[in-house]
Amino acid sequence: MSELSVFSDTNLPPSAQNLLESSILPHKIIISSKPSLSLLTSVDSDPNFLLADIAFGQPNINDILNSKKLKWIQISSAGFARYDTEDFRGEMKARGIIVTNSSSVFTESCVEHVFAFMLANQRNLPNALEARIKNTDPEWSRFRHESKLLIGQNVLILGYGSIAIRLVEVLKPFRMKITGMRRKPRGDESIPIISSENLPKALREADHIINVLPENSDSKHFFNSKRFEDCKQGAVFYNIGRGATVDQSALYESLRSGHLAAAWLDVTEPEPLYENHPLRNLKNCFITPHVAGGYQEEFTDLVRHFLDNFRRYQKGEYLLDRII
Amino acid sequence: MSELSVFSDTNLPPSAQNLLESSILPHKIIISSKPSLSLLTSVDSDPNFLLADIAFGQPNINDILNSKKLKWIQISSAGFARYDTEDFRGEMKARGIIVTNSSSVFTESCVEHVFAFMLANQRNLPNALEARIKNTDPEWSRFRHESKLLIGQNVLILGYGSIAIRLVEVLKPFRMKITGMRRKPRGDESIPIISSENLPKALREADHIINVLPENSDSKHFFNSKRFEDCKQGAVFYNIGRGATVDQSALYESLRSGHLAAAWLDVTEPEPLYENHPLRNLKNCFITPHVAGGYQEEFTDLVRHFLDNFRRYQKGEYLLDRII
Repeated sequence: MSELSVFSDTNLPPSAQNLLESSILPHKIIISSKPSLSLLTSVDSDPNFLLADIAFGQPNINDILNSKKLKWIQISSAGFARYDTEDFRGEMKARGIIVTNSSSVFTESCVEHVFAFMLANQRNLPNALEARIKNTDPEWSRFRHESKLLIGQNVLILGYGSIAIRLVEVLKPFRMKITGMRRKPRGDESIPIISSENLPKALREADHIINVLPENSDSKHFFNSKRFEDCKQGAVFYNIGRGATVDQSALYESLRSGHLAAAWLDVTEPEPLYENHPLRNLKNCFITPHVAGGYQEEFTDLVRHFLDNFRRYQKGEYLLDRII
Repeated sequence: MSELSVFSDTNLPPSAQNLLESSILPHKIIISSKPSLSLLTSVDSDPNFLLADIAFGQPNINDILNSKKLKWIQISSAGFARYDTEDFRGEMKARGIIVTNSSSVFTESCVEHVFAFMLANQRNLPNALEARIKNTDPEWSRFRHESKLLIGQNVLILGYGSIAIRLVEVLKPFRMKITGMRRKPRGDESIPIISSENLPKALREADHIINVLPENSDSKHFFNSKRFEDCKQGAVFYNIGRGATVDQSALYESLRSGHLAAAWLDVTEPEPLYENHPLRNLKNCFITPHVAGGYQEEFTDLVRHFLDNFRRYQKGEYLLDRII
């Protein structure tokens, strides 16, 4: 294969940047003059983009549409809302441009994060870390009994992708009843899958509702007042997908009234949620700042994942995490 | 079997008390006039104790030694330091008194608690819940990279009993290297077991050191300066056994210097640790107030476990959780 030019706009630490540059040789790398500020934000237009065969990062949509050379884009995040429109998908297909994302890099981390949320919830951990109770006080027994075992409970996962698949694996020793919801069931899922028509019944039965829905035109405020009302009294809601999939006013109301026992959110609208936002004033709403996918080796693994696909691309093999 | 008298000193909630009393019929229950304040403290002497064939709770040692009728004691906790002396063991054996504890009631809860600790540590959860970082700040990436994946790490469990056995099961999907230390290896353990002679090497290799040692004369301040120095730089220490097994000054020094990355303690000396205790002033020391074994159905399950053994006792079967 002739020399390829890879445009990279990710602001990588030196070790990951060196790994990328040295491993791409003898192919060429074009470093964006304005690297992306984070794995979640688009970069500005860059004239050198037009020289690239391949783009790795959060490429500017106009640059993509203006390019005549581009063959493959690997997005450096798991979410890809900016690119997930009918128009963009159609344009990519028409031009034969492959689009992959980096979801498998973040899978394990996201699963460990939501599992940490679940166990911290069951063990009443934020309150327990603050508690100063003597074990002869009547309060001690009451406090202990606020914890609930995870084992045997009922879980509903919305969005069946790599996170759901791995989550089912790690929850296995806890013998939970796990159901999933997926837009287009394929029949090869590891758990029973319901359609959105059967969602009210599934919500009524679930102790833990795990939202991993991607952000797109179908999922905007998917969790609205009606859906929260459908939830079982005392259920716990988790969001590690995208903030836009939740109507936060409806969530607030459900938490305030005690209908939902608690919510654990890694994603919100906006991020971070401003300090005096109503959700911040609830004792049963726990928020982390979009860090579920983060871990020590994150950038090195992002580069390794790209390089894996780069080798596959050159050999004409199927690319991992293909989305278009 | 003729009528048996069961002495109960546990301060049970009404539903659990009713379950106990109704299920014991036609046998007799003797309720202590001074029920135990908690599952961890001994009761005062009670003259009616001498009428009991069976004691369920935290019976007074002098009452036990003075009894002529007693055949079986079921302790309502997992720990049994008060009863775990050579003298007491010898006396019980000589008199043919069986002693059981309630460890299997607390196993799942303790395992979920230590697992919550491990995942909260890996996900940097206490800090993440406080963080207000915008995802375009350089700080955001740095914060994300403070998290570490649990998968593939090295775990050492000190004390191989029902908690260790179940912990190994629930950690299985995380493909960790797990080693145990046990006073008397039996050869049927589900993980490689080391003796205390090989502990320095095992401590040097472990990312997570989980202390489930019981309190007895051998385990007093088992974790001293030398043992903490043997730990790998950056290791995390967990204690869900008993506070007395740790030299807290040595633990403080190891945490303060950063040799241990963090400690997560459910048990301390004393409990609760007073507010200005040095360990309370460390940002890498996380303490819960001896609640690992607690959960919503705890007392009902304690009674069910006793009733299960009560049926076994009447049939002459082997009793569960026998310790003497």
